[in-house]
Amino acid sequence: MFHVDLNCDMGESFGAYSIGNDEAILDFITSANIACGFHAGDPSIMDKTVKLALEKNVAIGAHVGLQDLVGFGRRNMDISPREAYDITIYQVGALYGFVKAEGGKMSHVKPHGALYNMAAKDSKLAEAIAEAVYKIDPELILFGLSGSKLIKAGKEIGLRVANEVFADRTYTDDGSLTPRKEKNALIEDKDKAINQVIKMVKEGTVVSTSEKEISIEADTICIHGDGKNALEFAKKIRDDLENNNVKVKSICDS
Amino acid sequence: MFHVDLNCDMGESFGAYSIGNDEAILDFITSANIACGFHAGDPSIMDKTVKLALEKNVAIGAHVGLQDLVGFGRRNMDISPREAYDITIYQVGALYGFVKAEGGKMSHVKPHGALYNMAAKDSKLAEAIAEAVYKIDPELILFGLSGSKLIKAGKEIGLRVANEVFADRTYTDDGSLTPRKEKNALIEDKDKAINQVIKMVKEGTVVSTSEKEISIEADTICIHGDGKNALEFAKKIRDDLENNNVKVKSICDS
Amino acid sequence: MFHVDLNCDMGESFGAYSIGNDEAILDFITSANIACGFHAGDPSIMDKTVKLALEKNVAIGAHVGLQDLVGFGRRNMDISPREAYDITIYQVGALYGFVKAEGGKMSHVKPHGALYNMAAKDSKLAEAIAEAVYKIDPELILFGLSGSKLIKAGKEIGLRVANEVFADRTYTDDGSLTPRKEKNALIEDKDKAINQVIKMVKEGTVVSTSEKEISIEADTICIHGDGKNALEFAKKIRDDLENNNVKVKSICDS
Amino acid sequence: MFHVDLNCDMGESFGAYSIGNDEAILDFITSANIACGFHAGDPSIMDKTVKLALEKNVAIGAHVGLQDLVGFGRRNMDISPREAYDITIYQVGALYGFVKAEGGKMSHVKPHGALYNMAAKDSKLAEAIAEAVYKIDPELILFGLSGSKLIKAGKEIGLRVANEVFADRTYTDDGSLTPRKEKNALIEDKDKAINQVIKMVKEGTVVSTSEKEISIEADTICIHGDGKNALEFAKKIRDDLENNNVKVKSICDS
Repeated sequence: MFHVDLNCDMGESFGAYSIGNDEAILDFITSANIACGFHAGDPSIMDKTVKLALEKNVAIGAHVGLQDLVGFGRRNMDISPREAYDITIYQVGALYGFVKAEGGKMSHVKPHGALYNMAAKDSKLAEAIAEAVYKIDPELILFGLSGSKLIKAGKEIGLRVANEVFADRTYTDDGSLTPRKEKNALIEDKDKAINQVIKMVKEGTVVSTSEKEISIEADTICIHGDGKNALEFAKKIRDDLENNNVKVKSICDS
Repeated sequence: MFHVDLNCDMGESFGAYSIGNDEAILDFITSANIACGFHAGDPSIMDKTVKLALEKNVAIGAHVGLQDLVGFGRRNMDISPREAYDITIYQVGALYGFVKAEGGKMSHVKPHGALYNMAAKDSKLAEAIAEAVYKIDPELILFGLSGSKLIKAGKEIGLRVANEVFADRTYTDDGSLTPRKEKNALIEDKDKAINQVIKMVKEGTVVSTSEKEISIEADTICIHGDGKNALEFAKKIRDDLENNNVKVKSICDS
Repeated sequence: MFHVDLNCDMGESFGAYSIGNDEAILDFITSANIACGFHAGDPSIMDKTVKLALEKNVAIGAHVGLQDLVGFGRRNMDISPREAYDITIYQVGALYGFVKAEGGKMSHVKPHGALYNMAAKDSKLAEAIAEAVYKIDPELILFGLSGSKLIKAGKEIGLRVANEVFADRTYTDDGSLTPRKEKNALIEDKDKAINQVIKMVKEGTVVSTSEKEISIEADTICIHGDGKNALEFAKKIRDDLENNNVKVKSICDS
Repeated sequence: MFHVDLNCDMGESFGAYSIGNDEAILDFITSANIACGFHAGDPSIMDKTVKLALEKNVAIGAHVGLQDLVGFGRRNMDISPREAYDITIYQVGALYGFVKAEGGKMSHVKPHGALYNMAAKDSKLAEAIAEAVYKIDPELILFGLSGSKLIKAGKEIGLRVANEVFADRTYTDDGSLTPRKEKNALIEDKDKAINQVIKMVKEGTVVSTSEKEISIEADTICIHGDGKNALEFAKKIRDDLENNNVKVKSICDS
C-alpha cells in the first residue's frame, strides 16, 4: 500500500502576534515543523507548540529560518555556508531544548522560506545545512524540496531525507516549483491539487506546466496552516488520500 | 586539600563586534560561561567559543540572559517566571546544539547580569530557572550567587549547585554583594581581592563591609575576561590559589 | 460646549503579523498614536498608517515604547532617564520622517505600555521624555495619564499636555488606574464606561473604587482598536458623547 | 583651486560594544556618516555622535543600512524597492530627531554596505532610496558610488549628489570597484592610494587594474575610522591633499 507524510509549518506566532490555527491543524498532520525564533516563533510559543505536538502524537521538526523577523524569513540573504551551518545548529538546538524538557524526541529539520529555496539550488548552503543536522543528530530526517540540492546533500552525508511536494503548486519541466510571481504558479482548484499529490505518491510523476510528465519523489506533502480554509483543506486532503489507498503516516514510522 | 572552580563569562562578541580575550583566558579557568545570543553572542561566536573550550578542556556552561542586546542583559526586566523558564530552555538548548555537534558535554548553566541578580532574590524566577535546567538535563550544575534564592531553588529541585563568589566585590552583612553604585563595592587591590577568596574557600567566611565575619560558601570564583589586566589577574589568582594550597579544578570533577 | 479628544493606538502590526483594524477605527477617532518599531510596528506599517491617518484627517502622534518586541513593550525595564530620552528622540524622529515625507505634521507623542506606566510615576523618566519631546519640537503635545508625573513634567518644560483617561478602567482614590490584576480594574458594561467618561469631561470628576468622588482632568479618551467589538464601541462612544453635548474634536484644534 | 570632501562612517558602536575612534577622526573629516540603528549604532550612540559632529563642525549624514545587525549590514538581502524606501525614511528620520533636538542640520544621506552596493547597480532600489531622501528633504545631498545608478537616480529626482571614491580600492575598466575577493582589490601602499585620489580630484581620471585611464568624478573621499592606522592615515591624506592644492572642505560648502 502507498503511504505519505503530511507536514505543516507551525509555531509561527510571536509575542502578542498570532498566526495560524496550530492546535486544530495538528489533528490532521503527521509532521509539525516548528519555527525557532529567527523568522517567527519565540521561546513561549515554542514551548506551547512542542507540548501540543507531543500531546497529539505528531512528529516534531525544527523549522529553521533566516534571522529576518520583519521579513518572515522570506527574503533571500547572502549568507555564507558557515553562517547557514551556525544558524541551523542554533535553531535546532533551541527547539531541541523544549523537546528534551518534555521528554520527547525531535524527528526532523526543514529549512524555511528563503533558506529553503536557497538550499534547494545552492550546493554549498545545502551541504552546510545537512552537515549541521547530521552533526547534531544523525537520526534526524532532513526535509527539502523534492529532488533538490538539499535532498542530495542530505543523502550524501548519510541522513534520511524526505522529498517534499506541494499540493497547490505547479511544477516546471525540471521538477522545480513554478515561481510564485508567475500566473500559473498556484493550483486553485482543490480537487486538482489533491489529484496531483495522489499521482505523485502513487505514480511518482507530475505533469509540468508544459504538459510533460516528469518524475518526482513524494515522501511528504506540505499543507498550509493559515488561511481561512486551511483546516477544511487539511481534512479533505487527508480523507481523499486515504480513500485513494494512500495511508497518511509519519515518515518516522516508515 | 582545598579546591575551587574558576569561571569566566565568554563568547560575548557579536557580529562585527568583539569583546574579551577568550582564547587566552581559557588557559587559566576551569569553567566557561558562554553567551547564548540573547544579551550577547551569536551563532558563529558560540560555535567558535565552544570549539575553543573543548580544545582547552574547559567545562562548558550556558550563560543565559535577558533578551536585551543593546543593554547587554544588564537592565532588570519584569519578566514572568514562565518567561524565565522559556528563555532558559531556549538558550541552554541553543548552546547544547553546538556542544552536541562537537561531541562534547555541557556541564553547567549560569544566568547573566540582570537575570542573575533577579534570580538571586526572587524565589519564583529562581524556581523557574532551576526547573528549566533540571528538565533539560538533571546532570547540569546550576551556578548562582552564593547563598542566593537561585542556589536554594537548584538544591530543592535536585540539581547540583555551585555557589559563586567574586574576588573583586565586597559583601554586606547578609552575604549579598554591595551594590555597584556604592563607593566600597569594588576591591581595587588585587592582593586583597585574592586573599578574600582564599579565605572564602579555606575558612568559609568573608569579612563584610561593616567588618563582621560572615559565613559564605565558595564553590566557584568568577573572574572577568575583559579589561586590560584580565589575563594577568587570571594568571595571578590561579597561581596564588595554588600557592596557598587551593587546587583549581572544575566543579564537574569534584 | 464641552469637548474631548478621542485617541487610539495603531500601526501595531509587524511584518507578516497583523493586529487591529486601523483603517476602520480612524473614522471615529481624532488622534492616532502610531507605533514606531520598538514595541510594535515596522517601517512599512508606519508608512501605511501615516498615509491613512493623513487621508482621514486624524492627528498623528508617535507612540513610543520600550525596545521589547516580544513583550509588546508591556514589561517594565530598568532603563535610565538618559535611555528614555534617547529612545524617545529616536522613535519620534523615525515617525517624523514618514510624516514629513508626506507633507504632514506630527501633533503629539504618547509613551506606550510599560514606558507610559513608568513615566506616570517616575519623575526622572517623565522629565527625560518631556525633554526629548520638547527638544525635537516644542509644539508637540505630550499625552500622559491624567494627573501623572508625565503630565507634570510636560507642563514644567513648557509643552502642551493632554490628560488621558480611560473609559473602561476604574480609578483608585489617588486618581491612578486600578491595577489590571485586581478584580474590579475593568468596567465591562459599555454604558457605565461611557457614562464615566462623560462625567469626567463635563464635571471633571470620577467615582473611585471606594466610592469617593475625585477630581480628574480629561482632555483625551483612549479607546482600543483591537478586540472584536472595538469598532462598535468606537462608534457608540462617539455618538453617546455627542448626544450628551460633548463635541469630539482633536486636541490640536482646541 | 581644487577641492574635495572627506567622509567617514561613524557611530557604529552598539550598546556595550565599541568600534572606531569617532572623536579623534572627526578632527580630520568634513562629513560624518552616522549609523542609524539598523546595521550598527543605537539611540544613545547616535545622540553622542551627533553632538560630537556638531561640536567639531562636521557635516552630518544618515548612514542607512539593512536591518541586519549581526551581519553589520554587509550581506545582500532581497528587499523590494518599497522596503528600501521605507527603511531609508525610518533611519533618516530617526537620525534627524537627534540632529533637530540639538538645533543642528542634517546635510546628507549615504547607504551603507550591502544597501550601498545593491543601490549602485539596481535602478529600482536606487530610485526608491533617492525618492525617500527627496521626500524627507530635497536639500539633502545623496552620497553614492561615483558614477553609479544611485548617483543617477539622485540627479534625476532633483537631489544634489556626491560621487564617492575610495583611496584604498582599485577600479575596473567600467569604473566599478574591484570586488574585495579579488587579489588586487586593495591598495596597500598609502602613497599610492593618496596619489590615486589626488589624480581623481584634479584630473577626473583613475587608472584601472588593466592599466586603462578612465573617467571618474570625485566629490567625496571615503576614509575608514577603525583599524589601528586610521587616524594616522586620515591626517596624512588630509595633509597630502592640501599640499597638492586640493582643499578639503565639506560638499555642503561647495
